[in-house]
Amino acid sequence: MPTVREATFDVFRAHGMTTIFGNPGSTELPMLAEFPSDFSYVLGLQELVVMGMADGFAQASGKPTHVNLHTAPGVGNAVGGIFNAQANKSPLVITAGQQVRAQITIEANLTNRDATLGPQPYVKWSHEPPRAQDVPTAIARAIHLASLPPRGPTFVSIPMDDWHVEADSDLAAHASARSVEGRSAPDPAALAELAERLQAATNPVLIAGPDIDSSGGWDAAVKLAEKQRLPVWATPAPGGGRLGFPEGHPNFIGILPPAIGALSATLAGHDLLLVVGSSVFPYYPYIPGPLLPDGATLVAITSDPGEASRAPMGAAILGDVALALASLVELVSESERAVPDPRPAPEEPAQEDPISGSAAAAALADAWPDDGIAVLETPSSTIALRNRLRLSRPGSYFFGASGGLGFGISAAVGVALAQRERPVVCVLGEGSAQYGITALWTAAAYKVPVTFLVLRNDEYMILKWFAEFEHVGGAPGLDLPGLDVAAVARAYGVPAREVSDREELTDALREDIAADDGPRLVQVRVATGMWLE
Amino acid sequence: MPTVREATFDVFRAHGMTTIFGNPGSTELPMLAEFPSDFSYVLGLQELVVMGMADGFAQASGKPTHVNLHTAPGVGNAVGGIFNAQANKSPLVITAGQQVRAQITIEANLTNRDATLGPQPYVKWSHEPPRAQDVPTAIARAIHLASLPPRGPTFVSIPMDDWHVEADSDLAAHASARSVEGRSAPDPAALAELAERLQAATNPVLIAGPDIDSSGGWDAAVKLAEKQRLPVWATPAPGGGRLGFPEGHPNFIGILPPAIGALSATLAGHDLLLVVGSSVFPYYPYIPGPLLPDGATLVAITSDPGEASRAPMGAAILGDVALALASLVELVSESERAVPDPRPAPEEPAQEDPISGSAAAAALADAWPDDGIAVLETPSSTIALRNRLRLSRPGSYFFGASGGLGFGISAAVGVALAQRERPVVCVLGEGSAQYGITALWTAAAYKVPVTFLVLRNDEYMILKWFAEFEHVGGAPGLDLPGLDVAAVARAYGVPAREVSDREELTDALREDIAADDGPRLVQVRVATGMWLE
Repeated sequence: MPTVREATFDVFRAHGMTTIFGNPGSTELPMLAEFPSDFSYVLGLQELVVMGMADGFAQASGKPTHVNLHTAPGVGNAVGGIFNAQANKSPLVITAGQQVRAQITIEANLTNRDATLGPQPYVKWSHEPPRAQDVPTAIARAIHLASLPPRGPTFVSIPMDDWHVEADSDLAAHASARSVEGRSAPDPAALAELAERLQAATNPVLIAGPDIDSSGGWDAAVKLAEKQRLPVWATPAPGGGRLGFPEGHPNFIGILPPAIGALSATLAGHDLLLVVGSSVFPYYPYIPGPLLPDGATLVAITSDPGEASRAPMGAAILGDVALALASLVELVSESERAVPDPRPAPEEPAQEDPISGSAAAAALADAWPDDGIAVLETPSSTIALRNRLRLSRPGSYFFGASGGLGFGISAAVGVALAQRERPVVCVLGEGSAQYGITALWTAAAYKVPVTFLVLRNDEYMILKWFAEFEHVGGAPGLDLPGLDVAAVARAYGVPAREVSDREELTDALREDIAADDGPRLVQVRVATGMWLE
Repeated sequence: MPTVREATFDVFRAHGMTTIFGNPGSTELPMLAEFPSDFSYVLGLQELVVMGMADGFAQASGKPTHVNLHTAPGVGNAVGGIFNAQANKSPLVITAGQQVRAQITIEANLTNRDATLGPQPYVKWSHEPPRAQDVPTAIARAIHLASLPPRGPTFVSIPMDDWHVEADSDLAAHASARSVEGRSAPDPAALAELAERLQAATNPVLIAGPDIDSSGGWDAAVKLAEKQRLPVWATPAPGGGRLGFPEGHPNFIGILPPAIGALSATLAGHDLLLVVGSSVFPYYPYIPGPLLPDGATLVAITSDPGEASRAPMGAAILGDVALALASLVELVSESERAVPDPRPAPEEPAQEDPISGSAAAAALADAWPDDGIAVLETPSSTIALRNRLRLSRPGSYFFGASGGLGFGISAAVGVALAQRERPVVCVLGEGSAQYGITALWTAAAYKVPVTFLVLRNDEYMILKWFAEFEHVGGAPGLDLPGLDVAAVARAYGVPAREVSDREELTDALREDIAADDGPRLVQVRVATGMWLE
C-alpha cells in the first residue's frame, strides 16, 4: 500500500511534473525526504524568486509546474509572485507545508492559520485537505484546474504529518490516471457571424494579445492577418506578457498606447476592432476619453471568463484563442483590401554618453541570435527594446503582465531551464533587479545560461516619468545611488562586466550569448529618460 | 479647505508618525508629491525589507509606524512581512496605492482587485474607503486599531485620485484630534485570586513572554519574581520575539524547550505555572506528551484575546501585562521560599577550526556593549547567543516571532533608526540573510550604524537538524555552496571583512561596534552544528 507521499509523487509523474521549484523549511522536509531520483529540485533563496522561476518555466514549457513553499511565511513571501503568475496565466501548482494536524487548532509556531486565505485573491483554488488520504486527489485537482482556461495558480496546504500516512489506493490510482481536456472551441455560429462581420468591414484591425502565443495560435494569427489584409497592433505593453504576433511582420504596425483616450484615438478610422487573446484593455495610466473610436465596434476572443465579463465595451466570444483563429482562417476568404503600409525600420539612435536606452536596445538587436528569447524587466526601455528586437518567433518574449517587479531574473532562469536549446537574454533596470536579486545565486549554482543586461541609470526612471505625467514634484525615494548590479552579481558567482559604449556592449553581448556556459552579466550606464523607439 | 492629502498627513503628524518606510510605485506618487519637510522617507528596495524595517522601528520606538506600499504587487511582496509583524505584535499602519477609482471595476493594469483580501489573514483591519473624503478617518481608525491590544498591522488601500480631492474639514479635524486609550488592567478580583494562589503555591514558576518587554513590564516582572522567589523561564525561543526577563538575573534559569512533551517534562514538580505575556505556547516541533506536568495548574496573563482563547490548557486572564504585573507585586507579600539556584556561567567553548557557533557567540559576548541591542536571525545559534549574551536590559532583543525569515537585516535597520543612541548588532546565517538581503543597501545609503555578524556554514543547518529529528534523509536544497554575504554586502556598499578565529572576531566586533559610522559586517565560518550553549 503506497503512502500519501508515494501516491502524490505518482500524480506529479503522471503529469510530467518532475521539476520542483522551492525554498524548503522544516514543514516541507517530510515531502522532500529520500527525494526520488527522477525528480529534480531547483532551490531559490527567497520565495518571490521561487515563484518567478516556476512562472518562467511553466510559460516556456507550456506545462503545469510545481512550486513548493514553506508554510505561512513562505507563502506570504510568495504572494507578489502569485499575483504575477495569475496575470501571466501561468499554470502553477503551489504546495506548502503546514504544522502537524495535532498542532493547528492551538496555532503552534509556524501554523498556517486560515491557510487557504494566504494566497487569496490570486489563486483559482485554495485548499487544505481535511484528511491525509485526500492529498493525492487534491493535488490532481489542483493540477487540472491550474491547466484549465484561463490557466493560473492553484494552492494546496499539506500538514506535514500527512506524507507518511497510508494512501487510499483506489482514490490514489484514479488521481494519477485521470485526464481533463480543457481546450474548447467557441460556438461555431458565433465564429461564423464574426467571419461575416470581418469580411464585410471596411477597415478592420487585429489587436493581438499574449494568449495567442501561449495557446499556440501564432501561425493562425499570421494567416488570418494576411488573408484578411489586417493591420495588427499589439495589445498595450503593460499587459503584454507574451507577443501575440511577429513584430517584424509587414502587417505589424506597433504597440497600442495603454491609456483609454490615447488608445481609442490611435484606432480612429477602424470600423471593427478584433481583439484576440487579451484583456480589453490593460490600461495604465488613466487618461479619460471615449472607449471606442467613432463608428467602431469591438469583438474580443478570449478563453478567460474574467476578461470577457469585465471589458467595459464591446462583445466577447469565449473559447480557445488558437482554435478560434484556425476556424476564422477557414471561414474567411482572401480579402482584396489594401495591404497595410509596413513600419519603417528603427532609426539609428543618436550617439550620446552615456548611451541612451535606445542605443542599448540597438546593441542588443545587433547581437541578437535568431532563436533568442527575451525576458524584459526594465520599465523605461520596454518599448524601445520591442521596437528594435521585433521578435518574430513564437515563445520568444516574456514580461511580467501584472506590473509587479521581481519577475525578470527569476523568470529568465526558469525559461532557460525549460528551453535549454535557445539562448535567453534578460534585460533589467538596476532598480527592478533588486526585487528578486537572489535568483542570480540560483543561476550561478545551477549554471543556467542566461545573459543578463543591466541598464543602470541611478534611478527609478519609470516613476520619474509617471511623476512628470501626473504633475507630481518633490517625491522622495526615486533615486538609487550606488546600486551596482554587476558587483552584486559577481558576489553571487555570476561573471559580470561593465561596458560604456554601444560597440563594446554589442561585442560583450555577442560573446556572452555565444558562451552558453552559465549566467553572465553585462552592465551599461544609460542616460536618464524613457526610451520609446 | 485642505485636500485629503493634507488632512491625512495631519493625522500622521498628530500621532508622531513622520517616518515613512516605503517602496514607491506610480500609484503612490500623488501621496508622496511635494513631500513635507517634517517627514522622512526610508526607501527599501523590496517590500519584505520595507516591512521588516518598519517592524523593527515600531517595536524599538513603541509607536505606530507607517508603511507605504505599491498597489497589489507591492502588498503581495510584503505579505510575509505582514505575517511577521502580526506575530511580533508590531503596530504597523500599512497603506497602499490603488488604481484611480474610474479604472478599478474594469480591472485596469495595477488594479488591486479585492484589495482588502491581499493582506489577509494577517491584518487586524483591511479597508478601502468608499469615498476619498473618508481617507483621513480611515487612516486614523487604522492607527488606533493597530495600537490597541494586541498590537498588530492594519491596512488601508487608497485610490490614487483620492489625494487631490477636497477633504471634509469637520471629519478631518476630528480624525486628527481624537485619541483612544487601549491599555486595560485585568479584573482586580481575578488578580486578587491569582495573588492568593501564587502565595499559596508550593513551587510556583514564572514563564516570561515577549509582551512583558513591549508593555514596559520588565521591572515589575523582576520585582514579582524577587518578592515571590520565583524561578523564571523564558517562553520557548521560536515565539520569543522579545525578552520578558533579564537573562542575567539570578532568578532566570533558562529557555523552555518548544515541544509539548519536553516542555511539560521540564516543568515537572511545579504546582503553579504563571505565564505572562506569551502564547501558551509557541510549540515547535511536535513531540506529544501531557500538556501540563502532573499536579500543575497554569494561569496565563495576556492582552491578546487570540492567545487567551486558543491555549489548549489552563486559565487565562485578559489585560495589560505591565499593569497586571504591577498589581500583583502590590498584592503579594515577600515569600520565604528558597531562592532558586542561579544558572552557572556559560562554559568556555572548545577551540575548533572553523570555530563553533558557541565560540562565535562567546566572541560577541566578549565584545558586547552594555547598552547593546541584538537582532537575531540565525536559527542554528539562537540558543547559544541568548545563553552567552544574557541580555539584561529592556528593549535589547528582537527576533522574528513568526518563524518567517527576512526580518533580521531589515529589522536591525529599523531598530537602529528608532534607537539612535544604542549600538545595534544583527546576527545572521548566510541563508537567512538572503530573504531580505537588499536591506543592506538601505543601511549603506542611509548610513545606519548596525554591526552585522554573519555565521557562514554553507547550509541551512536548522533544516538539517530538523531532518535528523524527523528521521528524514536525502532531502534536496539544504546546501548553500558559494553564498558569500560579505561579498554581497560590499557590493551594496557595506564595509565587510572576514575573520577566522575567535580572537579576530572579538576584535573586529569591538572595532565595528565602536565605529558607529554606518553599517559594517563581519563574516566568520562556523562549524556545522546546532549551538545550544
